[in-house]
Amino acid sequence: MSGRFSFNATDAHIIELSKYRQIAFPQNQRRPVQIGIDIGGSLAKVVWYSQNKNSYAATGGRLNFTKFETENIEKCIEFLKEIIRKDNNENVSMSKRVLKATGGGELLNDELNVIVETEDEMECLIIGLNFLVHKIPYEVFTYSETESEPMVFEEKVIDEEELYPYILVNIGSGVSIIKVTENGKFERIGGSSLGGGTLWGLLSLVTNAQTFDEMLELSKKGHNENVDMLVGDIYGGDYAKIGLKNTAIASSCGKIFRKKPEDRKKVKEEDISRSLLYMISNNLSQIAYLMAQLHQVKRIYFGGCFIRGHPVIMNSLSFGIRFWSKGTIKALFLRHEGYLGALGA
Amino acid sequence: MSGRFSFNATDAHIIELSKYRQIAFPQNQRRPVQIGIDIGGSLAKVVWYSQNKNSYAATGGRLNFTKFETENIEKCIEFLKEIIRKDNNENVSMSKRVLKATGGGELLNDELNVIVETEDEMECLIIGLNFLVHKIPYEVFTYSETESEPMVFEEKVIDEEELYPYILVNIGSGVSIIKVTENGKFERIGGSSLGGGTLWGLLSLVTNAQTFDEMLELSKKGHNENVDMLVGDIYGGDYAKIGLKNTAIASSCGKIFRKKPEDRKKVKEEDISRSLLYMISNNLSQIAYLMAQLHQVKRIYFGGCFIRGHPVIMNSLSFGIRFWSKGTIKALFLRHEGYLGALGA
Repeated sequence: MSGRFSFNATDAHIIELSKYRQIAFPQNQRRPVQIGIDIGGSLAKVVWYSQNKNSYAATGGRLNFTKFETENIEKCIEFLKEIIRKDNNENVSMSKRVLKATGGGELLNDELNVIVETEDEMECLIIGLNFLVHKIPYEVFTYSETESEPMVFEEKVIDEEELYPYILVNIGSGVSIIKVTENGKFERIGGSSLGGGTLWGLLSLVTNAQTFDEMLELSKKGHNENVDMLVGDIYGGDYAKIGLKNTAIASSCGKIFRKKPEDRKKVKEEDISRSLLYMISNNLSQIAYLMAQLHQVKRIYFGGCFIRGHPVIMNSLSFGIRFWSKGTIKALFLRHEGYLGALGA
Repeated sequence: MSGRFSFNATDAHIIELSKYRQIAFPQNQRRPVQIGIDIGGSLAKVVWYSQNKNSYAATGGRLNFTKFETENIEKCIEFLKEIIRKDNNENVSMSKRVLKATGGGELLNDELNVIVETEDEMECLIIGLNFLVHKIPYEVFTYSETESEPMVFEEKVIDEEELYPYILVNIGSGVSIIKVTENGKFERIGGSSLGGGTLWGLLSLVTNAQTFDEMLELSKKGHNENVDMLVGDIYGGDYAKIGLKNTAIASSCGKIFRKKPEDRKKVKEEDISRSLLYMISNNLSQIAYLMAQLHQVKRIYFGGCFIRGHPVIMNSLSFGIRFWSKGTIKALFLRHEGYLGALGA
């Protein structure tokens, strides 16, 4: 945003049930001309500002969020053209739109009649996250299925003193883990190649589901204990001496190879979907927890398009962090978790 | 072993190319009556002592090592009966054999006419490892494919002062990570459900290979870059700012979902095998490295049946530890890596 966040975020709030997951800025007068775009391995995310149509004095506007599959980038380009065309139709007095691109977004120069500026991806992620955490109440929440109301929102935005240091685990196709020690100061401390792309890739091999949502639907109906080897399967009960419950997963997919060859491929789509979802989530929460311990950090934010507000994923990540940290560290989620990079851009 | 290791290990050495991967103890007089058995999720491992037949004064003998698939435990029981029968045939003056069982090995009581004593699994692992490291030269080695001679053996056994603290990453169907701070003092500091069982389970779903060895053969011929999304696939080159090479894996299996639905299942068996092998090995080396950092440990031993002396696995684990630790920590392997539990028992 112009001069970074110098626009007025007073009274900013999330508009429930809005198309494009909008955030309203009723007091803002300065109209940012940038469109933020973050082209990841699987999804291209777009964030742009639109002025309120019925406002007299050019006061008030909204941030809008949407995404496209990177494979269908031409749809995204059409969409961007439409935003720019609308500006002209509405005859808004404005300077030319600037496209701020991050991720792999260097391809767009020729396609659009706009200025394209590329930005560093990590920097964009952090700027996006800081903006949401500092400015937007009810943006951050914790998640636990065992509570009657699983989502618990942070009603107030967080002061800088409380916030740092924190870790951002950004889960896209792959995973980046970034430590932020103060405003503008951050370091990629690690990552993992086991991310959303791994889950969708494996599930598109072993199930007939075609989309993310179909795969997640399958996983909701599955029972991982039909394919995972549990502690109880090996020891016939808890392995109490080292604190392993009999329901803990000893080996993800570990029961498959023990079946007769002709029975192996009869594994149920639902069961393998749930198993692999747990595998990826538990692994990431473990790595995030180890990094948080190493860097003595108490706040772990999870972002990226893998999460997409899906309860089964959030619950699994939350559970993992609670389990590994024995309740000392909380997993924090964001309502605009997939748009950190695009927003920062 | 009777009174733990009180038997004489002077001049102990590994017998190259022997059946049952034997270790010779030419100076030993005391004949241990125990048979060690470690029944894991996938494999049952057996270790037993046999006296040299041609020795006059009952001097000299060998430790023998073999394994069975846990699914075919009756084969293992037959084998144990055979060992006991042989004792009787050879008319060795001996006390009755004692079966020391660990892992899930409580099932054997009724089947065999022996005394069965169960032992704690972790304790057995550590006792087995300490015995090999302290007593058997040329047992421990490092591995690196980039060297003309990839296996470099530790010619001498290691003194206690040098050895501790160390981490043992025991990779069976699942993974246990154990920190050992002094003789007899150890703690399970973590683990992972992504282990051998995961690799074999997934590969038995997505390939037509039926055995571990067939799967490993496939992986040798594969090119993971056909299914993994590399850093270069996203950024068009290195992401130098954060030290990621263009050949680094950004997302394991991350290219599969980007293919057209009808092309997804045409992925080559060889490529997916290599991708998943890297996925499991890299992930374990990362978790092991993080734990080593957290616990300030410089030696990481890898054990368990997953490794089975396979160069592609050892290289991948070694590479991972070198990569994550920037060369400060070495991955150490053992020639009897699958038998730590059974040996300790």
